[in-house]
Amino acid sequence: MSLRLLLLCCLISIQGYAQISTDSAAFFIKDIYRQTLSEEKAYTWLTTLTKDIGNRLSGSENSLKAIEWAKATMDTLGFDSVWLQPVMVPHWERGVNEQVVMVSKQIGAHQLKALALGQSPGTGPKGIRAEVVEVKSLDELRGLPDIAVDGKIVFFNRPMDLGLTSTFSAYGGAADQRTSGPMLAAEKGAIGCVIRSLSTRQDDYPHTGMTELSKNIDNIPSLALSTNDATFLSETLKKGPVELVIYTHSKMYEEYVLSYNVIAEIKGSTRPEEIILVGGHFDSWDVGEGAHDDGSGCMHSMEVLYRLKKMGYKPNRTLRCVFFMNEENGLRGGRAYADSSFAKNEYHLAAIESDAGGFTPQSFGISAGANTSLDTAMSHMSGFMELLEPYDIELKAGGGGADIGPLKPNAGVLMGLRPDSSRYFDFHHSALDVLENVHPRELAAGAAALTSLVFLLDQYGIGK
Amino acid sequence: MSLRLLLLCCLISIQGYAQISTDSAAFFIKDIYRQTLSEEKAYTWLTTLTKDIGNRLSGSENSLKAIEWAKATMDTLGFDSVWLQPVMVPHWERGVNEQVVMVSKQIGAHQLKALALGQSPGTGPKGIRAEVVEVKSLDELRGLPDIAVDGKIVFFNRPMDLGLTSTFSAYGGAADQRTSGPMLAAEKGAIGCVIRSLSTRQDDYPHTGMTELSKNIDNIPSLALSTNDATFLSETLKKGPVELVIYTHSKMYEEYVLSYNVIAEIKGSTRPEEIILVGGHFDSWDVGEGAHDDGSGCMHSMEVLYRLKKMGYKPNRTLRCVFFMNEENGLRGGRAYADSSFAKNEYHLAAIESDAGGFTPQSFGISAGANTSLDTAMSHMSGFMELLEPYDIELKAGGGGADIGPLKPNAGVLMGLRPDSSRYFDFHHSALDVLENVHPRELAAGAAALTSLVFLLDQYGIGK
Repeated sequence: MSLRLLLLCCLISIQGYAQISTDSAAFFIKDIYRQTLSEEKAYTWLTTLTKDIGNRLSGSENSLKAIEWAKATMDTLGFDSVWLQPVMVPHWERGVNEQVVMVSKQIGAHQLKALALGQSPGTGPKGIRAEVVEVKSLDELRGLPDIAVDGKIVFFNRPMDLGLTSTFSAYGGAADQRTSGPMLAAEKGAIGCVIRSLSTRQDDYPHTGMTELSKNIDNIPSLALSTNDATFLSETLKKGPVELVIYTHSKMYEEYVLSYNVIAEIKGSTRPEEIILVGGHFDSWDVGEGAHDDGSGCMHSMEVLYRLKKMGYKPNRTLRCVFFMNEENGLRGGRAYADSSFAKNEYHLAAIESDAGGFTPQSFGISAGANTSLDTAMSHMSGFMELLEPYDIELKAGGGGADIGPLKPNAGVLMGLRPDSSRYFDFHHSALDVLENVHPRELAAGAAALTSLVFLLDQYGIGK
Repeated sequence: MSLRLLLLCCLISIQGYAQISTDSAAFFIKDIYRQTLSEEKAYTWLTTLTKDIGNRLSGSENSLKAIEWAKATMDTLGFDSVWLQPVMVPHWERGVNEQVVMVSKQIGAHQLKALALGQSPGTGPKGIRAEVVEVKSLDELRGLPDIAVDGKIVFFNRPMDLGLTSTFSAYGGAADQRTSGPMLAAEKGAIGCVIRSLSTRQDDYPHTGMTELSKNIDNIPSLALSTNDATFLSETLKKGPVELVIYTHSKMYEEYVLSYNVIAEIKGSTRPEEIILVGGHFDSWDVGEGAHDDGSGCMHSMEVLYRLKKMGYKPNRTLRCVFFMNEENGLRGGRAYADSSFAKNEYHLAAIESDAGGFTPQSFGISAGANTSLDTAMSHMSGFMELLEPYDIELKAGGGGADIGPLKPNAGVLMGLRPDSSRYFDFHHSALDVLENVHPRELAAGAAALTSLVFLLDQYGIGK
């Protein structure tokens, strides 16, 4: 134990719950950064997760392997307790040999790079074949007479708006094509749907993701095309009618299957009833390795508890790391965690999610729980957040995370790590979301920022 | 021209020099970002520079090709004037077939990956062969008796300290080994010198860079080893004596050669005598493509004038884009520019350099010119810099750039763009500094930040 840390611990022990000075806090944060950046621990874990296990769609065998590995790893880290929380999750499988072939008189037949969207039904062994109708938006499709869509394959082709500063805003502005487009196309009588991948690059990699299912109508096979092939299809359509031949053997099972959230905890010494949660989601799509989405967020979260424990820090509040299951296609993990927490009447002083990739952190977004004033919390926290200014980390209104959202009725604040978003949607939900696209130092900077925030919240609370 | 821009121009024209409202400025900056992120113009230029021309050490034929291309490109952009400013630059050449072979009884002979340092003399065709003495610092070498160094090859092996938040600080803490190590080794009687590459990664790529030459003693051949091979050499030394056999055919020419700074200008309408300069250095090391260092900074700078011109903006002050020659091994371009500027009694209200890579911008560093109060300038500027908060850009005390440094006696403020430094020293001065390691969107974000800053400085000045 360093002399500095010893002094700091004495301070804590002398003062009981009392807060340490901001000078001591600044020193402690410097140590957090120094150790986190030097050791690159999150990256070491992420290497094992991505290379020894790989992607882990909820309900898959691989997701259970990953859960087993996470529990076993946490068990070695000296936390007070580690447990699995059962969650029933939906079960969808892609199947093999997906194919989309574009056929036109002008240029013949071309295979397009495509991935079925999550929850999409299959085409059956005979596939489907129909003419393509291109639209740029749901409204444009709504405006078409049903006859123009009936029996066709609808092609949504609105690109993400790269002129927006945040790629998350660009994603938000285009994602309805994927989430609601296929259902609307089905309602209009289409027999299939393809969308331009939600990607920030023009390349050959299709990006999958969840599409919504209707309970009223038969859902239709739906797939994402690579941005290059979406452009190719659109250009070809300008020359004359185009048909697509689609085979996809994906399947949505009726039965939910058993899975788990993985949870680790360090009990608080003076305010154990106040929980500070840091987490990410452990499931990923079934292509790539789920490295940024959201292996990074989970490894971040595990490092927070690991780092504070390793530095000999004894928290006032209870610190909890949660790997949520099934964020991508159901959010069952987040809901199960909240249900269980409400049943135990737990109070989360802060719930923090990291689910925006392992890139250089820029800020924390913050929203208020049901009984908290955002202004009060931000005003109180902006005092101690100044300690993160040397690390270029700011506090910004708005934000949280999908998995922690259900905690809102009984949480102080909900927060989300906001890293640089420039590259996130180059990789998101595609075969490119692999370890090689995560930079160890950027990942470490995120872990250091989260660890520092958890330390500060544990010391100074949220001002009520 | 958009209605918004038209209104803004009317405002400017009605008010003469008067400043536009911050609301209008916020809109204009939003447009700057939108256009810059959408068009990715800097990346298009950088693609040509790196792939059609490549690296461009000052004094090389390639550097002259690059200058010709830059001038021709600027000539097409509709600026008020474009010119070449003659600069005499040193002339050093690497030669071919550099080799470093490690020989030890325990493990035989192994070729190590190495690059001669800039200005290093060659070994002659017979090469040199001597035992290796490893040290971690200049002080450690100073402490050794001359007899322990005489006739040997000194090996500096202190890694960059990755625990520091800024990799530039880590670089600063290790760079003396490269800049001054070989000269000190020569003074102590060594016949050669190798250093551990100044790199943030453990890999197989040596990183070159400038080493200082003594005028009093014979300089000795000096090279950088890849970090992997530096580790390998150090491990081997633990097992027993090691010799290195070194061949390098690099040559420092006595005669300086003619080169040029490339300059473009848009004349100010109401305060033409106040210059706002934005620039980078156009020379690079002779490996890789000088993509981040500093092709990015030059393309950034050219885009500032291009973008404002394209948006129909008529500046109050004179805007100047400067590609400086010879930053890497002499700084002759920066000095020649300042000499010429002083001779014409020019005043630079602000000189801004981008020479820290084409990564996501985080802040601008600022230093005061000789007759400016930094406090006054920062206090004035912090008002309008709030307009860059939505883009996660801050103003921070300290900074500028090597090429603009000589302007200090007659400048208002000197500023430097500070991008995320996580990856910069993975690539710096090595074969990895290529276009593929520049992300178009990150490069564009830097150009947008610089354009916005120049616009704000043109509108609101520096407060005196």
